[in-house]
Amino acid sequence: MQIKFLLGESELPTHWYNIIPDMPGPLAPVIHPGTLKPIGPQDLATIFPMSLIEQEVSTERWIAIPDAVRDIYRLWRPTPLFRARRLEESIGTPARIYYKYEGVSPAGSHKPNSAVPQAYYNKLAGTRRLATETGAGQWGSSLALACQLFGLECTVYMVKVSFTQKPYRKSMMQLWGAQVFASPSPHTNAGRAILAKDPRSDGSLGIAISEAVEDAATHDDTKYALGSVLNHVLLHQTVIGLEAKQQMKMTGDYPDIVIACHGGGSNFSGLAFPFLADRAAGRQVRVLAVEPSSCPTLTKGVYAFDYGDTAKMAPIAKMYTLGHDFMPPGIHAGGLRYHGASPLVSQLVAAGEIETRAYPQNPCFEAAVTFARTERLLPAPDSAHAIRGAIDEAIRAREEGKERVILFGLSGHGQLDMASYDAYLSGNLEDFEYPDEKIRESLGRLPKVSV
Amino acid sequence: MQIKFLLGESELPTHWYNIIPDMPGPLAPVIHPGTLKPIGPQDLATIFPMSLIEQEVSTERWIAIPDAVRDIYRLWRPTPLFRARRLEESIGTPARIYYKYEGVSPAGSHKPNSAVPQAYYNKLAGTRRLATETGAGQWGSSLALACQLFGLECTVYMVKVSFTQKPYRKSMMQLWGAQVFASPSPHTNAGRAILAKDPRSDGSLGIAISEAVEDAATHDDTKYALGSVLNHVLLHQTVIGLEAKQQMKMTGDYPDIVIACHGGGSNFSGLAFPFLADRAAGRQVRVLAVEPSSCPTLTKGVYAFDYGDTAKMAPIAKMYTLGHDFMPPGIHAGGLRYHGASPLVSQLVAAGEIETRAYPQNPCFEAAVTFARTERLLPAPDSAHAIRGAIDEAIRAREEGKERVILFGLSGHGQLDMASYDAYLSGNLEDFEYPDEKIRESLGRLPKVSV
Repeated sequence: MQIKFLLGESELPTHWYNIIPDMPGPLAPVIHPGTLKPIGPQDLATIFPMSLIEQEVSTERWIAIPDAVRDIYRLWRPTPLFRARRLEESIGTPARIYYKYEGVSPAGSHKPNSAVPQAYYNKLAGTRRLATETGAGQWGSSLALACQLFGLECTVYMVKVSFTQKPYRKSMMQLWGAQVFASPSPHTNAGRAILAKDPRSDGSLGIAISEAVEDAATHDDTKYALGSVLNHVLLHQTVIGLEAKQQMKMTGDYPDIVIACHGGGSNFSGLAFPFLADRAAGRQVRVLAVEPSSCPTLTKGVYAFDYGDTAKMAPIAKMYTLGHDFMPPGIHAGGLRYHGASPLVSQLVAAGEIETRAYPQNPCFEAAVTFARTERLLPAPDSAHAIRGAIDEAIRAREEGKERVILFGLSGHGQLDMASYDAYLSGNLEDFEYPDEKIRESLGRLPKVSV
Repeated sequence: MQIKFLLGESELPTHWYNIIPDMPGPLAPVIHPGTLKPIGPQDLATIFPMSLIEQEVSTERWIAIPDAVRDIYRLWRPTPLFRARRLEESIGTPARIYYKYEGVSPAGSHKPNSAVPQAYYNKLAGTRRLATETGAGQWGSSLALACQLFGLECTVYMVKVSFTQKPYRKSMMQLWGAQVFASPSPHTNAGRAILAKDPRSDGSLGIAISEAVEDAATHDDTKYALGSVLNHVLLHQTVIGLEAKQQMKMTGDYPDIVIACHGGGSNFSGLAFPFLADRAAGRQVRVLAVEPSSCPTLTKGVYAFDYGDTAKMAPIAKMYTLGHDFMPPGIHAGGLRYHGASPLVSQLVAAGEIETRAYPQNPCFEAAVTFARTERLLPAPDSAHAIRGAIDEAIRAREEGKERVILFGLSGHGQLDMASYDAYLSGNLEDFEYPDEKIRESLGRLPKVSV
């Protein structure tokens, strides 16, 4: 029985899939954080090159991937799709479980899929340096790598809890030539303001974004790069799902459900959007976004206008949010600690197109260990959320006696997360259910936008 | 230009290549460490299952890979072969450089190629537990994984310097269900004897082997597994070279030189032996083994009978050796710190079939960083030795104005070795040239074998 489904280099997608023309209704406007009025593409030019701003608002369904980007993609792409036969057996399920594995990239996750084109377009636009934030370090190391490839400098603001938990990620970024600061840092007004209030702050993606945006906005030759949330980032990630669709054809199966973890939305959208596109052609496919219950943006947040960052410097978007100053606890899935969600995913969740589910971290690590012991690969803690979702769907299939085809995204490997596994295996992982009243509190501070 | 050469699952080799019938002369006998007389296969049955002992002495050129082993191999095999185009450009060489990448395995190196069949044959033979040693942790984590897959227990004696430098490797073994002890440990007579002399001993592969062999020899249900050196281990690794030969055909090139790092010999032989076999068919191909100058077995050792371990419990073999109580300094390429070399490689070196070269660790890390910054992948410190060799050959090709085809083995990734890279990048790596008189000293204690 075949378990590994590989594509040749020639089957690497030539275009990204842009979901915007297929959205169920017009996009909400993006709002200026100062004026609280809608802004146009030109207003974003301080922090992004125009080519990426154009992608952000493009209504073309297919956008060509530049040759220079494909040339780098093919160092690790197309990535493999596996049938998780041993996992199926251990669950005793009639379901067939497949997973698309992005951990084969040089940085160990899906993040280079967007880092490479972002560095490329910035280089073309004459940018000298990119500033960015990183949670678990996956995005920061991917951008460091991409910048080095195109001869750009790179400054990374790394959420402090990850900076401490994952020193190897920091070293990897430095090896690829980036300058790395623990965030909140003393290098920006945004960082200093947080440190003044709480010198021992663990940081958050929202804070790190504030720092990186401020760095870009206050330096002429510097632009900002975001690893998730924005339309153009989600666009770049669709190579995952486009490849997965070709590979599912090789299996002879089509997924009944597609599952991915959700932080800002880039991994989730990368896998899921190309499958959502099949619905127009009459395909029945459920799509499930899984998030941590300690940062339950999609499951307990509201769909409203909010700032993209903590310091209110980033644009305001309509999205699911827990409030821009929501401070998630220092869980190990560092990439899933963001108060908001991508506007595109949010709109689709609000329209009932996407299912959502939240899990505490212990059941996710339990799923990851089961996976590592049956399928051999060590999953990143973020990806563990998708595995938990897939295992639960497989258990349900067993209970209902249904054959069911499950596809999930294994967005990264966990070889640099062994300390987290240690904590789990020794019973030292805490589970956090965020109290609803705390969420109500931060939701009380949303900006008043009327459009 | 194509840079990635992939094989389909159906092209996974069906047989291992056994070099014994093609050796330039008969093999030297294996000697009993107590009687100093030749021993037969039966004498090894305390520590190995008979099926592996048979492979150890087999004169069949092709040995079938069991289906159950191929079934697991194909989780990550065939592994990719890359053209290092960006590395070539950075050197400005007319040489074409290719590398075979084994870092895609679940443990991150070539080691599972032998761990899986060893666990399989032991399971068939009724073994309950396997004991082993590990240097850098690559072998230990591979055997832990293989044991878990076949339902065997696993005890790993991990060289103390690596146990300290690489806590994540230890966690990985534990995640895959193994019990891990820092070696020298208080759990064996061999370990206790070393600790009594030097409580702060860094350990060595020779000591760890003594502990694991003692563990196996003193427990009825326990066998021993070695990650390198022995004929059957080298045999299993030939899948690397067999695949690489198919992939080189896809490139249209044939290597002028094949380069791999050498510790005990398993990675080196796995890539090189299938190419050596082509010489009989009239192919001109140089083969180069690269080792650390702090443990210069092939370049400064002697070809003589010596114990496989420090405590003189393991069989005596004719091999290049620095003396069984040679204590290499705690370099970062933990897998290359063995006093001996595989008897097969040794005989070929003595016969002039294989070239050898030694490098200090700083130039190797320099090569690894160049590689990581051009080719994107982070090499294991062990593999860095092969990269150094390949870069130097490419520089020579430039100086001589010669087109030359270089193939090297990238035996593992270095994502768990970031602390070593940190040390290198901050200028804190020491280079050790082992003083010749120290080597003469340990060579004075070789056993007196007359056969």
